[in-house]
Amino acid sequence: MHERLLLEQIQAQSAGLESRFPSTLVVGPGDDCAVLRSPSGDLSLVGVDQLIVGRHCTPDTPVDLIARKAIARGVSDIAAMGGRPTWALAAAKLPAGFARARELFDSCAAWAEHWGCPLVGGDIASSQGELALSITVAGAPHPTRGPVLRSGARPGDLVAVSGPIGDSFTSGWHLSFEPRIQEARVLCDALGLSLHSMIDVSDGLGLDADRVARASGVTIEIDAASIPARAGSTSTWRQRAAHGEDYELLVTISPDAVVPAPLSVIGRARAPENGEAPGARVLAPDGTLTPGSELGWDHG
Amino acid sequence: MHERLLLEQIQAQSAGLESRFPSTLVVGPGDDCAVLRSPSGDLSLVGVDQLIVGRHCTPDTPVDLIARKAIARGVSDIAAMGGRPTWALAAAKLPAGFARARELFDSCAAWAEHWGCPLVGGDIASSQGELALSITVAGAPHPTRGPVLRSGARPGDLVAVSGPIGDSFTSGWHLSFEPRIQEARVLCDALGLSLHSMIDVSDGLGLDADRVARASGVTIEIDAASIPARAGSTSTWRQRAAHGEDYELLVTISPDAVVPAPLSVIGRARAPENGEAPGARVLAPDGTLTPGSELGWDHG
Repeated sequence: MHERLLLEQIQAQSAGLESRFPSTLVVGPGDDCAVLRSPSGDLSLVGVDQLIVGRHCTPDTPVDLIARKAIARGVSDIAAMGGRPTWALAAAKLPAGFARARELFDSCAAWAEHWGCPLVGGDIASSQGELALSITVAGAPHPTRGPVLRSGARPGDLVAVSGPIGDSFTSGWHLSFEPRIQEARVLCDALGLSLHSMIDVSDGLGLDADRVARASGVTIEIDAASIPARAGSTSTWRQRAAHGEDYELLVTISPDAVVPAPLSVIGRARAPENGEAPGARVLAPDGTLTPGSELGWDHG
Repeated sequence: MHERLLLEQIQAQSAGLESRFPSTLVVGPGDDCAVLRSPSGDLSLVGVDQLIVGRHCTPDTPVDLIARKAIARGVSDIAAMGGRPTWALAAAKLPAGFARARELFDSCAAWAEHWGCPLVGGDIASSQGELALSITVAGAPHPTRGPVLRSGARPGDLVAVSGPIGDSFTSGWHLSFEPRIQEARVLCDALGLSLHSMIDVSDGLGLDADRVARASGVTIEIDAASIPARAGSTSTWRQRAAHGEDYELLVTISPDAVVPAPLSVIGRARAPENGEAPGARVLAPDGTLTPGSELGWDHG
């Protein structure tokens, strides 16, 4: 079974968890992060992500960039909820005889501090198999907007992205991207409750838009011609929309709002028609429509 | 390099992290859990631990018991600080073609709920190599005692354990142990600030006592003859003190306190003498002393 489908099944199984743990849990599995409540009512965001060498980066990737990417992916999930990172944990599964564990952890600690989420603990275990990092990152939601969920898109919303989409691997962006913490903060400041939904584009623009659409019960239509491309891109719109690892923000905002920089509008949300299932679809230059669920990378 | 030494080096490198993040971080790397502070001042505990099949359990272990042990290890770290588990995250690295992922996650979710820490998120990735789980567990410290650290032992303290030590693998205890949440709560209730330090015995009684002694700057002397053994044990005191995975609480308490059940006193703490380095040592029935650091299992 595809990991994507498995994860969705597991998340579906968790439906109602909030009602069984109402004092602690505000938003359970299924968004970029969970939203938790402290006894005094402070909200926090938390999520976990794995980086497996050979899967999410090539085995010849420098140790510092492995650490950077592992932390940055977690930080991007906090940005996707409009949050500010606050702390992190790192668990490393090291190949037998791996000689650069100290360097790896130093780099994890340095990048975590760089993004404001000090590494407050960790675990190390040697094993067979490849190098794997499991990174937990927590954050604080925007102080006035609160957590921005995937499920807030409404019919009529403008759909927009915070930067270029596509060519992440060929350009090296997947190792050098800057998680959109500041941009997310600016969007929350500028738009407030007119910022209806947000996600980071990690698995493919089409697939991630589809997740927003399904979580929100709307249809999202994206115009392929309006998707901003990286300078010098020679890939097709379909490649750009499907390859993922862009780590840009995909948002839907009220049509009444002034669209703030650096957003580029790429489509609209509408109510599903004639019994169609909620979802995203991309209108190609030749007039054909492709389901967003077919434009994504199941990279686990 | 041994993982144990590597982890200690990394923790030493993190010294002073609390002073750089004073509003968030109360206790950084080096204890069973980190202690965090929310904006309103609520304290929470958080830690991460890995379970690697072939390393922490045999490959023929039933999936439900793999999940149970992974969650229980994290819960035990919360108990070791006197806390109550509140939420958990699970990241799974699955062997290619692993057919029981759904069962594994369902078991993780069920055991997490069983111990009061619902699984609020997770990640799945297929890979080469063995099945590995990385579990983050958070908790709330005892409402009046607060977090019980490794570093609180004082000269004169009684040293005690909450139950039998040794034979965890041969008895199957390492797959069936009950994390000592209730016992930790009772100790905090009964002893309050007379409960000076606490740790869970996971890597070997001698090694874990040595960690308490070094964190606290004291010498701990344990009488091997007083270490409670599991019924029917045929192992030597040295095996029992070194094999680990007991998941009992090791505490030091004020000598003025009444020792509550289920504690068994096994030794005393004193000030280091004549320039000796802080540490634990175990007095054998033949009168010889063994350093605690030699009585532990570097299982990562």
